[in-house]
Amino acid sequence: MSSEEFRTNGRAVIDWIADYYERLETLPVRSQAAPGDVRAALPAHPPQTGEVFSAILRDVDYALLPGVTHWQHPSFFAYFPANASFPAILGDLLSSGLGAQGMLWATSPAATELETLTLDWLAELLDLPHRFMSTGQGGGVIQDTASSGVLVALVAALHRASGGTVGSTGLGSPRHIVYAGTAAHSMVEKAVRIAGLGTANLRLIDVDPTTQSMRVEHLRESVNADIGSGAVPTMVVATAGSTSTTAFDPVGEVGELCRESGIWLHVDSAYAGVAAVCPDLRWVNDGLEHADSYATNPHKWLLTNFDCDAFYVADRAGLVGALSVLPEFLRNTATESGAVIDYRDWQVPLGRRFRALKLWCVLRWYGAEGLRAHIRQGIELAQHFAALVATDGRFEVVAPHPLSLVCFRLRGDDEPNVELLEKLNASGKVYLTHTRVNGEYTLRMAVGSPATQTRHIEEAWRLIRELA
Amino acid sequence: MSSEEFRTNGRAVIDWIADYYERLETLPVRSQAAPGDVRAALPAHPPQTGEVFSAILRDVDYALLPGVTHWQHPSFFAYFPANASFPAILGDLLSSGLGAQGMLWATSPAATELETLTLDWLAELLDLPHRFMSTGQGGGVIQDTASSGVLVALVAALHRASGGTVGSTGLGSPRHIVYAGTAAHSMVEKAVRIAGLGTANLRLIDVDPTTQSMRVEHLRESVNADIGSGAVPTMVVATAGSTSTTAFDPVGEVGELCRESGIWLHVDSAYAGVAAVCPDLRWVNDGLEHADSYATNPHKWLLTNFDCDAFYVADRAGLVGALSVLPEFLRNTATESGAVIDYRDWQVPLGRRFRALKLWCVLRWYGAEGLRAHIRQGIELAQHFAALVATDGRFEVVAPHPLSLVCFRLRGDDEPNVELLEKLNASGKVYLTHTRVNGEYTLRMAVGSPATQTRHIEEAWRLIRELA
Repeated sequence: MSSEEFRTNGRAVIDWIADYYERLETLPVRSQAAPGDVRAALPAHPPQTGEVFSAILRDVDYALLPGVTHWQHPSFFAYFPANASFPAILGDLLSSGLGAQGMLWATSPAATELETLTLDWLAELLDLPHRFMSTGQGGGVIQDTASSGVLVALVAALHRASGGTVGSTGLGSPRHIVYAGTAAHSMVEKAVRIAGLGTANLRLIDVDPTTQSMRVEHLRESVNADIGSGAVPTMVVATAGSTSTTAFDPVGEVGELCRESGIWLHVDSAYAGVAAVCPDLRWVNDGLEHADSYATNPHKWLLTNFDCDAFYVADRAGLVGALSVLPEFLRNTATESGAVIDYRDWQVPLGRRFRALKLWCVLRWYGAEGLRAHIRQGIELAQHFAALVATDGRFEVVAPHPLSLVCFRLRGDDEPNVELLEKLNASGKVYLTHTRVNGEYTLRMAVGSPATQTRHIEEAWRLIRELA
Repeated sequence: MSSEEFRTNGRAVIDWIADYYERLETLPVRSQAAPGDVRAALPAHPPQTGEVFSAILRDVDYALLPGVTHWQHPSFFAYFPANASFPAILGDLLSSGLGAQGMLWATSPAATELETLTLDWLAELLDLPHRFMSTGQGGGVIQDTASSGVLVALVAALHRASGGTVGSTGLGSPRHIVYAGTAAHSMVEKAVRIAGLGTANLRLIDVDPTTQSMRVEHLRESVNADIGSGAVPTMVVATAGSTSTTAFDPVGEVGELCRESGIWLHVDSAYAGVAAVCPDLRWVNDGLEHADSYATNPHKWLLTNFDCDAFYVADRAGLVGALSVLPEFLRNTATESGAVIDYRDWQVPLGRRFRALKLWCVLRWYGAEGLRAHIRQGIELAQHFAALVATDGRFEVVAPHPLSLVCFRLRGDDEPNVELLEKLNASGKVYLTHTRVNGEYTLRMAVGSPATQTRHIEEAWRLIRELA
């Protein structure tokens, strides 16, 4: 493709995307495709000779789009939102265009330095503890997801707890133990398995049935029992805004316990953390001053296209010590000078895309005020929804809803709730997902798209009442 | 940003990228920035109010670009190429625009089905063994990098070797051992550390000094010694095209040994594997029929923007068994039917971007013939370079160069080679990196950009002779 053809095809794709957002509301939110539909609509074999780009775009429309669930639809209320925004799309397009590798500072200094700066900017916008700024001993990095973040945190925690011997001689004796609330994300179990600890060395601490918040007294008992049996309590994952209900663990109390016992504290605030752009919501950071690592995802609720998990550590040297392997072909004078960050040592992969560009574009385009307006809109709409639910005695709101997620259900058995959810989603007009709270099947209304307005909330509620 | 503003700004970015490629040759290949230069050129704090997009683009030009090393420059010969291409950029732009999550089939069926199909297409184009096709027991998935691929392969290998107990009770006794040639990529050591085995349980098998190829008799001795001491040989990583010199391990012989002993064979062909689009180069696949998992990176030499590691397994159920954790909030009828693939269970992260789009755009735009022409061009140019080096008695070519990488050096001591490389790169006219072959400092001329022509090779050689 020549650069002139790229200009033409590029404009066509830009227009395709603009048109897509303009007509998004006319499309069913959840794809109505059955397994195999999409594949069946496409050629079974790759072409021998090249095709024109318009043919590709035509297949996007006719073969792919019916199989796409529209995460940017204003009536998408499933999971958590995965915000895209036009400035982020353009930042990511610049990254694709440059095609630069940021694995080392030396392989493209701007990729590293813009990432360090942008993560410092974000830390300032969220009023994170200074220990997470690159200007001290810590710093931020973009991981693909919170799952990868908690895995590298665990590797660093094992490195610290074992004085480096896990990396050299491996796990075995003594046993290393990880703790998290039962409301913590499944990524903790996945990380524990990948890191070789096994689920037997993960303690899921029970939560208060009302707040869904980890019970610190039970954490303490569990830690003490493990110490008593000769195991090494190595990491606690505290959740600030759980996936099921946006429940908050008592991070401050958990942190004090961790400090007493020398346990690595990772705070997962994948969804909720970005709310701290609003000064009145900085309570979401409570206790963070105790954390060794922290993660929040601008790719969820802060207008930055996936993937963008902002991961911070208080001691970057510990992370690098756990993950750095330096073969000859990566040696360079900048690395050896010690004056630069090489982000490959902060993550699982070696290669890395210039992801800071999209976050930087978002922070600049919106500014602090624009970001705050976005977060406030999501919260206001969710609170409006919760108030609507409270007007109908058939329903109950089943957990605190301090941010933009409301968990609710039809009172009584699970089955009518299962049926209600399936009818709602089959309508194509809204898309919600579910969880279980204290064992009960519960619907989750997750607001947070920049496109969602009051009318979408009210239409969703009308539909819910109608189908209930 | 309204959709109308997006059309305007989007065109500006498309034009910026087209202009960038048109003027790329006038820019220094390796950034001349010193540590801190980029950061110093940007505001220290985020803006309170939003900015216009033209201000952002201006800073890309004036603050960032001097800090960018131009990986798409026709005279970029460092590391391995990380090909970008216009069709891939547009495919990735579509992915950003849709903003869909492909973690489960149910979260956007098209993302999963296009990925499965596209990886089957690629397997067909490369003539991979049928066991890696999704139509049997295996299948392909896009990982971010080969590093993540080898990590999940290791987790699956541990799962199989331990009958699942590593995931439940963790590593300890018996010890699990991983083997790779000394020429294998550092990612193997990184994976061994992340997975909790420790480097003491990694055996680096020596290589033939001429071919840099793993010595199977030494692998066999090492495996037998470990079995004798009660350890469990768990995975061998065979390299088909090493990072230092594109050396090939004897995958067939290694595979037979693995089969006899029940060891998981992972074949890493991150750079070289894509060469198999050319029928006459299918020898790069030799022995692959023994592999349990295999990875090659279209984001290196097959015109597909980073990140796109094509990772295949022969038994997808084993991989899923090792990695699947299913919390309530991800349960859905499609998953429970068993009729669909949920790619979150094939990787470390949970969330995933619609990365198949860019690879699909590449395969369609170029077709098999276009891809073959690209690979052949890289090889021809590299062979031309090797022939030029052979004309000057001061230099020696130090390893086989069957593909598009040529390792060469000034005969004699290392120091003149170190100086030569630094002078070359400081010139801004070319960018090469180095390795060590049999302990000797060696320059690597890695060809493979679609923009590179004969004149760039000849200019590079003229410069090398002049500065030597």
